[in-house]
Amino acid sequence: MAKMVDRRQFLKTMALAGVSIAGAGTLVGCSDNTSTDQAQENTGITWQEETDVVVIGSGFAGLAAALEVVEAGFQVKVIEKMPVIGGNSTINGGDVAACGSKMQAEQGIEDSVDLMVSDMLVAGLNYNHVDRVRLLAEKSNETLEWTMNYLGVKYTKLNYHGGHSVLRTHMTENASGSDIIKAASEKLKEKGVSISTNTKFVRLIENEEKRIIGVEVLEGYKFGKDDSGTSKLIKARKAVIMASGGFSQDVKMRQIHEPRLDDRFSSTNHQGATGEALREVLKHGAMDVHMDWIQLGPWTSPDEPGFGYTPQFCERLVGMSPMINVKTGKRFIMETGNRKVRADAIIELGEPCIILGDEYAVKKQVVEKILEGGLANGCIKKYDTLEEIADAYNIPKDAFLAEIKHWNAMVLKGVDEDFGTKLLDGAKPTEQAPFYVARLWPKVHHCMGGLYTNLKGQVINQDFEPIKGLYAAGEIVGGTHGAVRLGGVACTDCLTYGRIAGQEAAKEEAWS
Amino acid sequence: MAKMVDRRQFLKTMALAGVSIAGAGTLVGCSDNTSTDQAQENTGITWQEETDVVVIGSGFAGLAAALEVVEAGFQVKVIEKMPVIGGNSTINGGDVAACGSKMQAEQGIEDSVDLMVSDMLVAGLNYNHVDRVRLLAEKSNETLEWTMNYLGVKYTKLNYHGGHSVLRTHMTENASGSDIIKAASEKLKEKGVSISTNTKFVRLIENEEKRIIGVEVLEGYKFGKDDSGTSKLIKARKAVIMASGGFSQDVKMRQIHEPRLDDRFSSTNHQGATGEALREVLKHGAMDVHMDWIQLGPWTSPDEPGFGYTPQFCERLVGMSPMINVKTGKRFIMETGNRKVRADAIIELGEPCIILGDEYAVKKQVVEKILEGGLANGCIKKYDTLEEIADAYNIPKDAFLAEIKHWNAMVLKGVDEDFGTKLLDGAKPTEQAPFYVARLWPKVHHCMGGLYTNLKGQVINQDFEPIKGLYAAGEIVGGTHGAVRLGGVACTDCLTYGRIAGQEAAKEEAWS
Repeated sequence: MAKMVDRRQFLKTMALAGVSIAGAGTLVGCSDNTSTDQAQENTGITWQEETDVVVIGSGFAGLAAALEVVEAGFQVKVIEKMPVIGGNSTINGGDVAACGSKMQAEQGIEDSVDLMVSDMLVAGLNYNHVDRVRLLAEKSNETLEWTMNYLGVKYTKLNYHGGHSVLRTHMTENASGSDIIKAASEKLKEKGVSISTNTKFVRLIENEEKRIIGVEVLEGYKFGKDDSGTSKLIKARKAVIMASGGFSQDVKMRQIHEPRLDDRFSSTNHQGATGEALREVLKHGAMDVHMDWIQLGPWTSPDEPGFGYTPQFCERLVGMSPMINVKTGKRFIMETGNRKVRADAIIELGEPCIILGDEYAVKKQVVEKILEGGLANGCIKKYDTLEEIADAYNIPKDAFLAEIKHWNAMVLKGVDEDFGTKLLDGAKPTEQAPFYVARLWPKVHHCMGGLYTNLKGQVINQDFEPIKGLYAAGEIVGGTHGAVRLGGVACTDCLTYGRIAGQEAAKEEAWS
Repeated sequence: MAKMVDRRQFLKTMALAGVSIAGAGTLVGCSDNTSTDQAQENTGITWQEETDVVVIGSGFAGLAAALEVVEAGFQVKVIEKMPVIGGNSTINGGDVAACGSKMQAEQGIEDSVDLMVSDMLVAGLNYNHVDRVRLLAEKSNETLEWTMNYLGVKYTKLNYHGGHSVLRTHMTENASGSDIIKAASEKLKEKGVSISTNTKFVRLIENEEKRIIGVEVLEGYKFGKDDSGTSKLIKARKAVIMASGGFSQDVKMRQIHEPRLDDRFSSTNHQGATGEALREVLKHGAMDVHMDWIQLGPWTSPDEPGFGYTPQFCERLVGMSPMINVKTGKRFIMETGNRKVRADAIIELGEPCIILGDEYAVKKQVVEKILEGGLANGCIKKYDTLEEIADAYNIPKDAFLAEIKHWNAMVLKGVDEDFGTKLLDGAKPTEQAPFYVARLWPKVHHCMGGLYTNLKGQVINQDFEPIKGLYAAGEIVGGTHGAVRLGGVACTDCLTYGRIAGQEAAKEEAWS
């Protein structure tokens, strides 16, 4: 004898049992007391909360998306698994790449969408999805102005990053992405949206048509304690936006895609940059791209943990100061080359190289608090003479002194004859004591790969169709950067496509 | 009022509606007239056929797998969507890479597992999954001997392929992979297994525990006619083995992963090398790796369609004869370099280069029927003098003649001074008329990426666990070759891991 079963109770059981309710639409045979319309509206799931849009992650992309949802007049809930908001977006140099900006114009820098696109494609080895790159470049200045005019973020100077043809990255006043995260989270608060920290995304919930209708989260989750937190089902009437970042800290996952990157390589990323949210989306038939392009930052130090101070010391000096192979005392790479080229070259050396800048270059280029922080934690050292540097790092002295002499002669000409390229405007010979030195060894920094989305931010499935109700933006998305991401473009990518995802999700027809 | 529902009928409805029956295990509430044990054995699906193992694809991997299942004493069904069997496995040069073979010993060639592993990792840019590479190298000679002793395949010589440190690829007597496919399919026939051609794999069917329990296929399918064929549900008591190959002919799919590879690039592959079977597996939560490493063959001709004759003309001549940039009359690349390096260098030229061999080199190296075929279809041309070649291809004559003189001087020394490497033993100056010339332009040849499997051939899901009842081998699997596959290793990969998948699938406990 078959038992009578209540459809609502039945589906609720399924949902609570952690079972995808795909295919549940065929269950109408179980119960005829609901019309089709009602069945679509009533999944039988007991939601503990509901909103229009759920945003997973509170970095640049997540907050930009949430703000757009709110501005469009809809409810949004932002969840963040970590105890603090912002993830990697708070621990970077606050550089926003944009072409055609006011600051560029003021400094007489000629830039264009075409030039920015071209720079990104060259670095990306043409793996980039060209339409994504072009839209990003086209919107880059609009994004920059949005952070200034809407969020009130201030930019104080243009920074150079290897691989860009011109000065294009706009540095926030505190040289930190937290300037943007702070402003965006305050704006959200003004609008009545608080961010739920310690709340971990567990899974997507889909209906009979495979439309995403909500999420399961763990409230009160403690990072690293898998059994912590309490399950909650949140209904998303319009959409779920995935903005949970990359997987640079996920050694198991990154080694499947890039076996070289075992636990001998640490990461610049915050501890929560693991890949379980991305993998959950892939379980729903989403397509991924470029998962094996995982960027090593070539400007990190083995003498401090995480991102640290060294990247903003090193990157401000490239094009003005030389990087030296300590074994030979010679340069070995164009310091302004892209991240992959430089990281691979350092790994090839088999040991850390050094970068050195003199008083002039360091004071001109490096933000004071970066220099102070680096000197305090020991990743940056100060020397009175070049000879002392040779002694300290066991560099062949004569070769090193000859190389600096050669470098200085090139600087006077303004041309890097070793690698056939220009040096930065304002570069002077490295000769003014004291000298500042940092050792460099690559760390895992950015996942270029991730979900495949269209230009609206809709996640695309294995049938090349959008998964209804599901959007993604930021580092969880692949295709923008191709093989190699340029410095400063991540902020622009996350903010631009985060805003688009929010705008598009707000337009989505509610399923309930 | 809820209707009473028969569980068997209900599940049958779901299956026929094309709905995954994942999660159906929670449906016991619908009916209490079946015990849990019975429920697991009886899915309610009306199968039109059943067997122990279903193999999707009839190339090297599929046939090797099927033979192992049969030898283990179990039933197997091989399906092939095309009207003929073998796919790409029939249209290649029949080169099987193996280290430590009898033929190598006879020719005094010193080779080892370590050397083969090292060659593969260098070409693969260390993206390779090292355990897969090592197992492959360790089993390579066993695989070669299996084709000789078990299938009766004959090998007549050792061929050189760029990137291998030693002569390691064993050429079948007709210089064609069809020698192996023919022998394997005849052996299967002996064992009572026929291959179902014109039968297209549509989808995997899984049970409540997400174990794969069968497949839906279209019988009487006509390639290219999506509405052709009749649906059939085939129960696989033990396992399904995916051996359906790569997606080199799938322009839409390859452009998502490698945007450069649009329809301006043709392919060496058979027309059926599209990616729908791989994408169906990914819909079931399988993990993919290295999807963006898609190999261009650098040895193909724009003057003939498909794989053609040119690859076996070019590859026999590299290391004995020069490749020339027609614009300069000079060499531009180490002819024995790996496929990616060479293909990228030709694309960089912006137009086809040529390879030329003289009477001595061509007669010594190139199989007669390849030369005859190429001359007949016009992809290989014959000239009496070097001057005629310069005229025919519009090459600067003096530069070209000087380059050949320079080349010949190096050949006499046995050293390629231009690129700091050795030339092939037996190389002689290019001076003996007539000369044979082919133009070279890359074609899409091999997908290094695909499903992530363990060393048993089990397909791994996004939770890093095997998908029960699902195996894969051959080009549909990623990780063996990393970024760049070496010539001759595909046969070994497909046969070795095809056999392993068959052996392991045969050991799988039947679910029904």
